[in-house]
Amino acid sequence: MNDSNKMKYLRACRGESMDTPPVWLMRQAGRYLEEYRNVRAKNKFLDICNIPELACEVTLQPIRRFGFDASILFSDILVPLVPMGANLTFGEGEGPKIDPPIRSVDDIRKLKKIEPRESLDFVLEAIRMIRRELPDDVALIGFTGAPFTLATYLIEGGKPNPFAHIKQLMYTEPEAFNDLLIKLQEMITDYLRAMIEAGADALQVFDTWGGILDNRDFRAVNLPVVKKIFAGLADLNVPTTYFVHNNAHLISEVKETGCTVAGFDWRCSLKEARKIMGKNIAVQGNLDPTVLLGGESAIRNAVRNTLSDASGPGGHIFNLGHGILPMTPVESVEIMLDEIRGGKK
Amino acid sequence: MNDSNKMKYLRACRGESMDTPPVWLMRQAGRYLEEYRNVRAKNKFLDICNIPELACEVTLQPIRRFGFDASILFSDILVPLVPMGANLTFGEGEGPKIDPPIRSVDDIRKLKKIEPRESLDFVLEAIRMIRRELPDDVALIGFTGAPFTLATYLIEGGKPNPFAHIKQLMYTEPEAFNDLLIKLQEMITDYLRAMIEAGADALQVFDTWGGILDNRDFRAVNLPVVKKIFAGLADLNVPTTYFVHNNAHLISEVKETGCTVAGFDWRCSLKEARKIMGKNIAVQGNLDPTVLLGGESAIRNAVRNTLSDASGPGGHIFNLGHGILPMTPVESVEIMLDEIRGGKK
Repeated sequence: MNDSNKMKYLRACRGESMDTPPVWLMRQAGRYLEEYRNVRAKNKFLDICNIPELACEVTLQPIRRFGFDASILFSDILVPLVPMGANLTFGEGEGPKIDPPIRSVDDIRKLKKIEPRESLDFVLEAIRMIRRELPDDVALIGFTGAPFTLATYLIEGGKPNPFAHIKQLMYTEPEAFNDLLIKLQEMITDYLRAMIEAGADALQVFDTWGGILDNRDFRAVNLPVVKKIFAGLADLNVPTTYFVHNNAHLISEVKETGCTVAGFDWRCSLKEARKIMGKNIAVQGNLDPTVLLGGESAIRNAVRNTLSDASGPGGHIFNLGHGILPMTPVESVEIMLDEIRGGKK
Repeated sequence: MNDSNKMKYLRACRGESMDTPPVWLMRQAGRYLEEYRNVRAKNKFLDICNIPELACEVTLQPIRRFGFDASILFSDILVPLVPMGANLTFGEGEGPKIDPPIRSVDDIRKLKKIEPRESLDFVLEAIRMIRRELPDDVALIGFTGAPFTLATYLIEGGKPNPFAHIKQLMYTEPEAFNDLLIKLQEMITDYLRAMIEAGADALQVFDTWGGILDNRDFRAVNLPVVKKIFAGLADLNVPTTYFVHNNAHLISEVKETGCTVAGFDWRCSLKEARKIMGKNIAVQGNLDPTVLLGGESAIRNAVRNTLSDASGPGGHIFNLGHGILPMTPVESVEIMLDEIRGGKK
C-alpha cells in the first residue's frame, strides 16, 4: 500500500481544497509528446496497450516530463471487449473498428463473460509495473469505458455516426439492450476491482457517448447501470471519477451516479457544477483543450478562469475538459502548469 | 404579401399557444425521401442549390407529402461563401471542402464584400418561385449560417475536426478573427433582408458550431455578432429563429441574442428552456432525430414528452432537435405527425 496522504491527487479527490490543485491531463500519454511518437513509430497502437513494458513506458513519459500529480494507465476503453469476443482493429489514421458489429439479441447473448484477472492480466501486469516505477507521491488511475459507451462502439462497429444503430436497438429492443449494458457493467466492475488489486490508487469511468442521451433517456437507460458500477466499488474506498463528454445537460444526473469525483466537459460551467455537486463530490476539469493551441496569454487567462470557477470548499483536480489534442505544443502544457503552480503567487 | 394569420407557423412564432403546434423538420427536404433521391440521382448537390427550379422542386416535396406548416428554402449555409471568394466543393459521400482554407489576416482581408441581390440572385429567384407555388397557409423560411459557424468552415477548410485551426486563430489573432465575423455578419444580415424582399415569411440562423464555445467565449466572441444580425432585422417584423446545435450550456445566452424564436438541441430540456425564455420568445424543437428510427411506441412516447415539456404560455413550433437522418423511414414521420396532430384527442 502506498501512503495516500503523500498523494495530492488523492487528497483533492477526498475533498481537500488546495491553493494549488493537483493536475493531470486526459490523454496525457499521447501523440503531442515526441517520446510517445518515437515508441509509436515502432509499434502498433494495440501493441502498446497489450505489452506491459510498452504501456508502462508511455504511461511514465508525461510524469517524467511534467511531474503531473497523477498518471493514468495507457490502454484503450475497447481493450476488454476483445476477450468478450469483439473483433477489434485500429487502422492507421482511422478510428477503431469492430467487425462484425453487435446488432441482434443473439449477438448480445454470444458475448462472453470474462475473468479479467486471466484474460486481461497483461493490463494488470502493466499496472503492477507502473506502480513500482512511479514516484510515491504520484497516483495511478485505472480506467474503463462506461457500459453505454462500450455498447455504442460494439453496436455501431466503431466510431458512431450518427448513432443510428445503437438508438434503433435501444428503442426497439429495450430488454436486450439492457441485458447488454448489464453484461458490460458486470465486466467493468470486476475489471476495475482487479485494477485496484494490482496496485491502482484510483479509478475513472469514461462515458464518451453518454452525453448524446437527453435527461430522460440517460435516467432511464444509463444512470441505473452507472450507479451499479460505483455501488460495486464503494467498499474499496478509493476515488472513483465519472466523466461524461458533453454533459452540460446532465449535471444533476452525474451527481446521482455515486461517483466521488465528477469530471466536466470544457463547456460546462465549473462554478455551476461545483454548486450542484456540493463539497462531498470533488470536481475535475475543465480547461478547453483548444486553448492550449492559443498562445501564452490565452492559456494563462483560461487557467485563471478555471481556478477561479473551481475555488471554494471541496476538492478540485485540474484537468482539461477533454483529451489533449495531438497538435498541442509541449510549451503550452508548460505554460499551463506554470500558471497553475506559480502564477497565483 | 401573404395573409400571415392563415399561417399557423407564424402565429406560433409570435407567441400564440396552440393545442396542436405547427410542425416542420430541419432537413425536411432530403435523402430520407425517395422523391428527393430521384432528383439527387440526376443532379449534383450544389446544382440543386444553384438552379432555382430544382431548389423549388425539392423544397416543395416534403410539403406535398406531409403537409408541414412551414417549408424551408433548399440551400446550403456555405452557398454565400462562394461569391465571397471561397472555393467550395462537395465530394460524393464526403462533407464540404473549402480549398484553400482561410487561415491568415491577409486571407480574411481578401474575402469579397458581396451584393446578395446580384451574386445570390439564383437563391432569391428560388424563394420567389417557391412562394408562388406554396399553399397560402404554409410559411417559407429563409436561412443562413451564423458568422461563427461560417468562419469555422472557412478556417478549417471543411467539416471541423477538432476545431484546431479556428481556435488557434480566435485566440492568437482576436482582432482579425473579429473582423472576419463582422464581415460575415454584414453579409448575413443583408442576405437575410434580401430573402424577405424576395418573399420569405420568416428567417432562421443556424449556428451549427456555436456550441463548441463555453459561455465565456460565446459571450465574448459570438454573442455580439449574433445580436447585430437580429438587431439588423428587427424593423422587418418577421420571426427570426436562432438555432445553436449543442446549446444546453447556452440557454441564457440564446435569450440575449434578440431572436424571436429559439431552437433547441434534443438534449436540452425544453421545459427548462421554456422557463428561461419566458413567453415572449417562442421555442422550437426538440425531438431526438434518432427516435424516428425507434418504432411506433418509442416515437409516440417521445412526441408526447416533447409536447408536454413545451406546454404553457408562449409559442411552440414542433421540430426535431437536429436534422432528420437520411435513414429515417417515411412511416416514422407519419407516426410522429399523427401523434402531434391527432394523438392528443
